[in-house]
Amino acid sequence: MKLSKELVIQAKATFGTPTYLYDEAVLRSSFNELRDALPDCVDIFYALKVNPNLSLVKLIRSYGGNTEVCSLGELEIALKAGVAPQDIILLGPYKKPEEHRRALEVGVFAIVVESESELRKLSVLAGELGCDAPVAIRINPNFSAAGSPWKMGGRPTHFGIQEDTAVANFAEYLALPNIRIKGIHVYNGTKILDAQSVYDNAAYILGLFRTLSERHKLDMRMVDVGGGLGIKYYENETELDTAQLKQLLAPLFNDFHQQFPRTRIILESGRFIAGKCGALLVTVDNIKENHGKTFAVTDGGTNCHGAAAGSGQVLKRNFRIIKATGNNGAPLREYHISGPLCSPDDLLGRDVRLETLHEGDVLAVTASGAYGPSASPTLFHSHGHPAEVVVSNNQLFLARARQTAVDIRDSHADVPLEAMLSTAAAAEPAAEIQLATQRQLSDILRVVLKLPEGTIITADSHLRDDLGLDSLTSMELLISLEDDIEGFFVNPDTIVPGHFNTVATLAGYIDAHRQTRSVGRPLGVVEVQHERA
Amino acid sequence: MKLSKELVIQAKATFGTPTYLYDEAVLRSSFNELRDALPDCVDIFYALKVNPNLSLVKLIRSYGGNTEVCSLGELEIALKAGVAPQDIILLGPYKKPEEHRRALEVGVFAIVVESESELRKLSVLAGELGCDAPVAIRINPNFSAAGSPWKMGGRPTHFGIQEDTAVANFAEYLALPNIRIKGIHVYNGTKILDAQSVYDNAAYILGLFRTLSERHKLDMRMVDVGGGLGIKYYENETELDTAQLKQLLAPLFNDFHQQFPRTRIILESGRFIAGKCGALLVTVDNIKENHGKTFAVTDGGTNCHGAAAGSGQVLKRNFRIIKATGNNGAPLREYHISGPLCSPDDLLGRDVRLETLHEGDVLAVTASGAYGPSASPTLFHSHGHPAEVVVSNNQLFLARARQTAVDIRDSHADVPLEAMLSTAAAAEPAAEIQLATQRQLSDILRVVLKLPEGTIITADSHLRDDLGLDSLTSMELLISLEDDIEGFFVNPDTIVPGHFNTVATLAGYIDAHRQTRSVGRPLGVVEVQHERA
Repeated sequence: MKLSKELVIQAKATFGTPTYLYDEAVLRSSFNELRDALPDCVDIFYALKVNPNLSLVKLIRSYGGNTEVCSLGELEIALKAGVAPQDIILLGPYKKPEEHRRALEVGVFAIVVESESELRKLSVLAGELGCDAPVAIRINPNFSAAGSPWKMGGRPTHFGIQEDTAVANFAEYLALPNIRIKGIHVYNGTKILDAQSVYDNAAYILGLFRTLSERHKLDMRMVDVGGGLGIKYYENETELDTAQLKQLLAPLFNDFHQQFPRTRIILESGRFIAGKCGALLVTVDNIKENHGKTFAVTDGGTNCHGAAAGSGQVLKRNFRIIKATGNNGAPLREYHISGPLCSPDDLLGRDVRLETLHEGDVLAVTASGAYGPSASPTLFHSHGHPAEVVVSNNQLFLARARQTAVDIRDSHADVPLEAMLSTAAAAEPAAEIQLATQRQLSDILRVVLKLPEGTIITADSHLRDDLGLDSLTSMELLISLEDDIEGFFVNPDTIVPGHFNTVATLAGYIDAHRQTRSVGRPLGVVEVQHERA
Repeated sequence: MKLSKELVIQAKATFGTPTYLYDEAVLRSSFNELRDALPDCVDIFYALKVNPNLSLVKLIRSYGGNTEVCSLGELEIALKAGVAPQDIILLGPYKKPEEHRRALEVGVFAIVVESESELRKLSVLAGELGCDAPVAIRINPNFSAAGSPWKMGGRPTHFGIQEDTAVANFAEYLALPNIRIKGIHVYNGTKILDAQSVYDNAAYILGLFRTLSERHKLDMRMVDVGGGLGIKYYENETELDTAQLKQLLAPLFNDFHQQFPRTRIILESGRFIAGKCGALLVTVDNIKENHGKTFAVTDGGTNCHGAAAGSGQVLKRNFRIIKATGNNGAPLREYHISGPLCSPDDLLGRDVRLETLHEGDVLAVTASGAYGPSASPTLFHSHGHPAEVVVSNNQLFLARARQTAVDIRDSHADVPLEAMLSTAAAAEPAAEIQLATQRQLSDILRVVLKLPEGTIITADSHLRDDLGLDSLTSMELLISLEDDIEGFFVNPDTIVPGHFNTVATLAGYIDAHRQTRSVGRPLGVVEVQHERA
């Protein structure tokens, strides 16, 4: 990804930071590199889990990519991106019933089934819907992808049906009502940078397909050889050799295609397609020396980019981080690049050598198009989701807006405190509810009556005599109470001057009146029996 | 947390799973345990980063808790929960300008400043706003909390100003315009289970406060001794001895209070207050044998509860997991409890011994009130935020609704593909845009015209002669186009019969018409200069 200084400054000025930039040209070039490395008989399915950004999915579709989805959310994104259902497969070790249902209703190409239990459920559901469920069986093989640092097959995982079981029971799968077995799926590893390993993996899976086809005399319509093609993240790694990949895969797949011309050969890819196109932009907020290290504190860390911060990795290695606002020949210095979190391991980079930094400099964490914000705890410290922006031919398109503080606040339900405490209060003194309302009322009185700092307000403070409430400020008080106290509205039929005697009497009126309103119980309240000890 | 089987069944029936349950009685009891262990002169500040759920914050406020916030989002939640600004402190190694501004405007008790750079910025901002900024200096001390497994002080971190620097420059801080130094803050570690360590830590900080007060002849109004009180997660741990804590802390703080009666002593706590009250409920979807291990696959894993899945930990240890739908004396078996993700390490528990599980059983991951969903990558695989529910006296209150697939889909901006590709198309052949629209149009034609499977559609396919479009299906086609193609509306003034000749002519009309509509450019589009290579 080639970042111009001007573009970075423009992105920061327009959208702020932290912000992900996705470069359309790099996305396209990565996709085409993969497309060119594969014979025409292979279909590429983009794995949305890697980056579900709607604009990226649209772009990848326009290049000729299909999609692999793992949830209802991803399925809806793929559909909105305009992907034809027949170019979608749904997989994942757990699927909600509504995911199965929606996939059947829209008519996806295949549901990749990961357990015999799922197969039985799907058979029942398809029967209810009066259709045949198009199914691929995910097999966890007796084989491991040698070149993957993170193996998914050939060892105990929660993926798929183990090979021996699947082979033994395949005839039963074929006989299930309302199930149409379209083929098999194997996904063996991830981050593979060795072409031979991709070949070995694919060859094993095609062999398995052949065996099952011959044994059961089948003309199955799909074989998914997984993917797991990696990209270079660290200095000690080498990019996957796509020329070698092509040399190895072309004869393998072409031979298979000749034998099974009606079988769609699917290769999944996420990281390889989207990984290189992205960069996370963060701004250096302050620089400090601390017990012998120099820290550049930025506005985005683990919460925006868990992978770069090394979440889940024993050995923390740095993604490549560059000074995106440009170099000018200043001497190199070594920095710990931190995020904003109150966790000591919130570090995007350790001992990173960069030209001397200044506050306001923008840094870019490169190779960040895969497993970025969607794989990060974006709500940690309630900072919220960073902005995501597509760069296309020097135009910037906001592809996902930054989550705001108010959005985050309002994602919580506003359950009245009194409702949560009311039943407890029945068993205990009502003191606590009263106390809470009195505190809130006192705060409001301080503001409305412009009370001098240090004024003491107690439950028995008289509103008129002690605090100076008059007819004018009474009106202001009522308005403030309605504004500030949730679920409280003044009812002219019930309020009487006596309620305005003391803090306690007015707080009591508020509590009683809020309780009246909550006769229609807050959403989702149910009564349940308590455990009998 | 005491979970009744009936309550769990009710929660699952009402809200589904995965769902967090927070038990009000346990929250209250944890708060009161801490309150009882501290002398009255100490104020407890609840750290929202641990769990920012609005209902929990309201409850903790009602028990007498104050709040410590780390972002604008957390500040807004605290204010909405009714916390008085004077009972809020704002801290964190990075703060947005709008966080500083809002904190000053509402009048928080103190802004905990973590760098000299922040102090200078705050001085300027407060000057602009015509106020004095109430500040506590966060000091990174020459001292480490012995009992903390995760040290924040006494070693290089991005927190605070290192002790030597802060002590040397304190007079300068005091002299800065529009800055009112209220005191100091030290936060040294987390997950501390040893009372003596809490004492040593607090004693060191109070000593530092004394030194600075005497040297500069100050009557500072705040000392924040941090917190970091832990809870028992694993079998090999012992709960913090709060009786011992009280014995140690009471004389320490009381002596200090006698010497500095006007100084607010602040102890922060998050995990200790909220940790025990929460449980994550997940449902067992399927059970499978896989290469020698038995997996119980559930609907919530790392994406809901990264901490339980051991994110960021080298040694994965199990949180306590129980069968929440009740035991019935079945024999014990050993399970890997997995989540729904396509990652082999998406395991809530490894080799967990439970009574024989069945599909539909609900499991509870206990001690999950702290660092739960807000610290987890809830958008991973686009599954979305789990539901959060408060249990109070056997009533269930929905405190945060589950994020839906449509919510997630619509959080993405819907940038027209043509806009993203239009400038690229100017440099390249327009083929790709056309191709994309043609593909989409072909898909729609297949549906509307009920074309037999295998019908070949090309750019030159004639809609009437080749595909059988007639006047009736024309209307249906137009409606489908408007429904399915984003940003496309038929304009009766511009469409002519010629547009209906071939796939290419109709696709061309669609593209042109969408481009007409996007004259008002999509939000956030800016033109920028390209890097001059």
